[in-house]
Amino acid sequence: MAAESAYKAPVEDYEFLFGEAFGLDLVARATDGEMTAGDGVDIVEAAGDFASSVLAPLQTIGDREGARLVDGSVRLPAGFAEAYQSFVESGWVTAEAPVSAGGDGLPGAIRAGLGEIWNGSNAAFALCWLLTAGQIHALDAVASDELRKVYLEKLVSGQWTGTMNLTEPDAGTDLGAIRTIATPREDGTWSLRGQKIFITWGDHDVAENIVHLVLARTPDAPAGAKGLSLFVVPKTLVNADGSLGERNGVTTVAVEHKLGIHGSPTCVLSYEDATGYLAGELHGGLAGMFVMMNSARAGMGFQATGISDSALQQASAYAAGRVQGGVIGRDSGAAIAEHPDVRRLLLSMSSKVFAMRALGVYAADLLDRAEDDESLAALAEFFVPILKGWTTEDALQVTSDAIQVHGGMGFIEETGVAQHYRDARIMPIYEGTTAIQSNDLVGRKVLRNGGATVEALLTDVEATIDALRGHGDPVAARTADRLERAVAATRRATTDLLGFANSPRDAYAVSVPYLMLLGTLAGGWMHALAVVAVLSHDEPKARGAERLTSADFYGAHHLPRVAALADTVAGGEIV
Amino acid sequence: MAAESAYKAPVEDYEFLFGEAFGLDLVARATDGEMTAGDGVDIVEAAGDFASSVLAPLQTIGDREGARLVDGSVRLPAGFAEAYQSFVESGWVTAEAPVSAGGDGLPGAIRAGLGEIWNGSNAAFALCWLLTAGQIHALDAVASDELRKVYLEKLVSGQWTGTMNLTEPDAGTDLGAIRTIATPREDGTWSLRGQKIFITWGDHDVAENIVHLVLARTPDAPAGAKGLSLFVVPKTLVNADGSLGERNGVTTVAVEHKLGIHGSPTCVLSYEDATGYLAGELHGGLAGMFVMMNSARAGMGFQATGISDSALQQASAYAAGRVQGGVIGRDSGAAIAEHPDVRRLLLSMSSKVFAMRALGVYAADLLDRAEDDESLAALAEFFVPILKGWTTEDALQVTSDAIQVHGGMGFIEETGVAQHYRDARIMPIYEGTTAIQSNDLVGRKVLRNGGATVEALLTDVEATIDALRGHGDPVAARTADRLERAVAATRRATTDLLGFANSPRDAYAVSVPYLMLLGTLAGGWMHALAVVAVLSHDEPKARGAERLTSADFYGAHHLPRVAALADTVAGGEIV
Repeated sequence: MAAESAYKAPVEDYEFLFGEAFGLDLVARATDGEMTAGDGVDIVEAAGDFASSVLAPLQTIGDREGARLVDGSVRLPAGFAEAYQSFVESGWVTAEAPVSAGGDGLPGAIRAGLGEIWNGSNAAFALCWLLTAGQIHALDAVASDELRKVYLEKLVSGQWTGTMNLTEPDAGTDLGAIRTIATPREDGTWSLRGQKIFITWGDHDVAENIVHLVLARTPDAPAGAKGLSLFVVPKTLVNADGSLGERNGVTTVAVEHKLGIHGSPTCVLSYEDATGYLAGELHGGLAGMFVMMNSARAGMGFQATGISDSALQQASAYAAGRVQGGVIGRDSGAAIAEHPDVRRLLLSMSSKVFAMRALGVYAADLLDRAEDDESLAALAEFFVPILKGWTTEDALQVTSDAIQVHGGMGFIEETGVAQHYRDARIMPIYEGTTAIQSNDLVGRKVLRNGGATVEALLTDVEATIDALRGHGDPVAARTADRLERAVAATRRATTDLLGFANSPRDAYAVSVPYLMLLGTLAGGWMHALAVVAVLSHDEPKARGAERLTSADFYGAHHLPRVAALADTVAGGEIV
Repeated sequence: MAAESAYKAPVEDYEFLFGEAFGLDLVARATDGEMTAGDGVDIVEAAGDFASSVLAPLQTIGDREGARLVDGSVRLPAGFAEAYQSFVESGWVTAEAPVSAGGDGLPGAIRAGLGEIWNGSNAAFALCWLLTAGQIHALDAVASDELRKVYLEKLVSGQWTGTMNLTEPDAGTDLGAIRTIATPREDGTWSLRGQKIFITWGDHDVAENIVHLVLARTPDAPAGAKGLSLFVVPKTLVNADGSLGERNGVTTVAVEHKLGIHGSPTCVLSYEDATGYLAGELHGGLAGMFVMMNSARAGMGFQATGISDSALQQASAYAAGRVQGGVIGRDSGAAIAEHPDVRRLLLSMSSKVFAMRALGVYAADLLDRAEDDESLAALAEFFVPILKGWTTEDALQVTSDAIQVHGGMGFIEETGVAQHYRDARIMPIYEGTTAIQSNDLVGRKVLRNGGATVEALLTDVEATIDALRGHGDPVAARTADRLERAVAATRRATTDLLGFANSPRDAYAVSVPYLMLLGTLAGGWMHALAVVAVLSHDEPKARGAERLTSADFYGAHHLPRVAALADTVAGGEIV
């Protein structure tokens, strides 16, 4: 049996999100009218075509062949290098990059769509793009003019790719334990020595050079994370004229054998007197790395949406095509998609995917707006850990459900659906585990301002509840009732959490449940906005009924979790 | 990095469950005093020693080598054949079999323990035992004296192994669609033709013969499931003197490449004029197969517990051994097990594993008692789908949590913890998907008697709540409060479900949530019984404090799900 690779980008949803769901043309607002939602849809559609024809066919190949280390160099699966060249030539790397860095500066809402599509069609491939994009943002924020000229241009054009080097064998979540050392040389460059692990796309054969962004400690630096500096360390050194010179002192020691994303090379890199260039302030390395990480964390939300949607598409196609046995309340010959429980699984998946997708667009747009409007910064930053933490955790359930829809066939690797389940499992771990996201959320974004940002969110949600009440539709009424209960539970949980301000173990013992509570609530809010948008049309729109059913399902099956999680938060640490 | 294979059987928990948790000596009651809880513990301990020394070391090998088809025969990974011979010689196959079949007839409570231990140490290996055990129960129930003499003896001694053959390419959940045909021959035997898929341990090289129990249709049989008969079809024919004769017409067409349990050969078997012997009544095949399936479904509960506990053991060992960064509220040098969120994950896992284990013992014992006491039959049968459905679904979360505890290392296959996640994923599918379990539960065991069995369960739970109230301990008080709310939510959900008696699509659209609700409630009840047992001792017992913390955690983190699921059940089908 051949694996199903018929990926199709969710263009209709983006059309709805760009132009309708939020009650205005998001793209027009973000670009001061230079572009419209329709332009955004065109771009998403073009990306979808590219993804379906070039990236999706490599999804299974990437999984089966995997990245291999051959004579010290990493070889990507067949077709990856050609796909990457085509990706670059089609301008997709440049499209993502900010104008200040020489890119097209597409608005966040559209980039959310692109991020989903690259990841949905081929998550292993998309990681190369995701990390390069993150590094572009970081260098754009902190690099000197010289570094910008030599490196940033090549990254933005897609000629070279970027990596982020944080983790070491004894320094994962705890960056302060980093031991890679950077020693100053007389010529102003630095000599780096140390070992970095879990370096995504740390070596490959799809582009001519790789730019490593490395967190390292300088001699006599303060202890802990405050003694870290950021260095640009190219795989191959660059001559004064911009041409490529000798290999730098970076070697690939190993490529990991992983549960999933086999097509993405996860490398152990050894730095031995490697030449590096300081990026940003000495001992201020975390600042630049946080820019990259923030970008990567939002990107994880798009990856979670993409992998989840890909699994959903495959499950939907299977369920629609397979006829077996009688179906309660349906004529004979009905497909298994009509079985009540298969239908439940598909609606559970699709209602989550829509919520993830909508929150991705909402948060990406908000991050854009916060760049010009300081008053939105707190809310925008608040959504980053929620988007990363909640979507990646829920993606595990969605990809698991996709297997369940397939029954026994789901467990057979040739079916292809198990790949999504394996690929997805890294998402709640890398770019900061869910616990790291939740600690960021609770510590910096809830406790620090006494829950003011949460309250701002709840006020927005209540405005949507009021809008729902303005419609006579029964789904609107049920959605309003359920959301109201969820808001009350969120207030209760937030009060309980604030009560733990002086007993941090209690706060951090329930920070993940609290993050999941907020993510689940935010998902319900996205559905509520969709209901309002659908009902605001006098004439029924395409997929309007489907959107109402999805919201109703989310409200009945997923939103009740908010109250359950609030009960959990109330308990603090159980000792 | 070597995979962790230091499996240790949870002997202390079984000591507690056999002798204390249920307020009496379960083993003594089940054996009319012939054995005691202490004897049960000795047996579990011996099984644990065997599992740790013989089965666990093959866990990783089984995963990496997998079962392979070589020249039409299946080859198991290195060491499996020797381990199986040792397993048989140690008497473990015979121990499981009922006395009426010539076995030792160990009580269900002890068999639950053995089932967990074989699966915890090596689930792929344990499947061979599990299916042979199931077939022994089926043949003991329906086979003629002649079949018993030729086949049952060899199965009980472990000399031969058994399989169950139901599924075909177009007949999975829908058994009525089975097309394998059995034609009568003049000598009283039958000729079988057809293809069976997903046959676990369908071929192998660890025992000298394999007995296939095959569901097939006879010419002129009624349509659907009522036209199916059961046949014994040996891999190698047996001569009149009992010696092995020629190969029968059964060939192994393929061995599946699966997500997990690689060491267990999942075969496509082709029957071409294969000789079969009718087992039980003509057209009464489902009766015997249901005996086997019921045994296998309870066995799945033990498998879910075993795989979950194995993942928990590995995560606990990793978290206790890894020191990284400062830990809130702890001295420097604390292991990551002390991080609030890692501790949360470990308690989440361990509190679920205890609940699964306790329910397995409770249900297995109840099934024993129901054999002598008709009044217990409904309650005993009621727990089979709950045990199978709930434990196997929750095992997915437990094995996922085990990866999360490992951080990035969890995604690396060499760590070994990802194997549990992959192995576990089949459990909610085989032996009847969770939807099949929930339909059995809702259709036959709730709607059919107007919820009388649920009410009997709730009455038992309320007696435990009363017992909790008799203790002044704060954990007892909290547990009683939470359980009381869960009981109220269960009554609400049951009333809502009974209201769907005439709209079956509504009932079956929420049958899985309802099953999960009952499983979660039952798990909370098991913890409540444990709290009562611990507090009934005047002197503190070993692990008493740990048991209270586990119950308290389950009440705060898992039990609130009951109310959320009740909200979901209320909605019926979302259209």
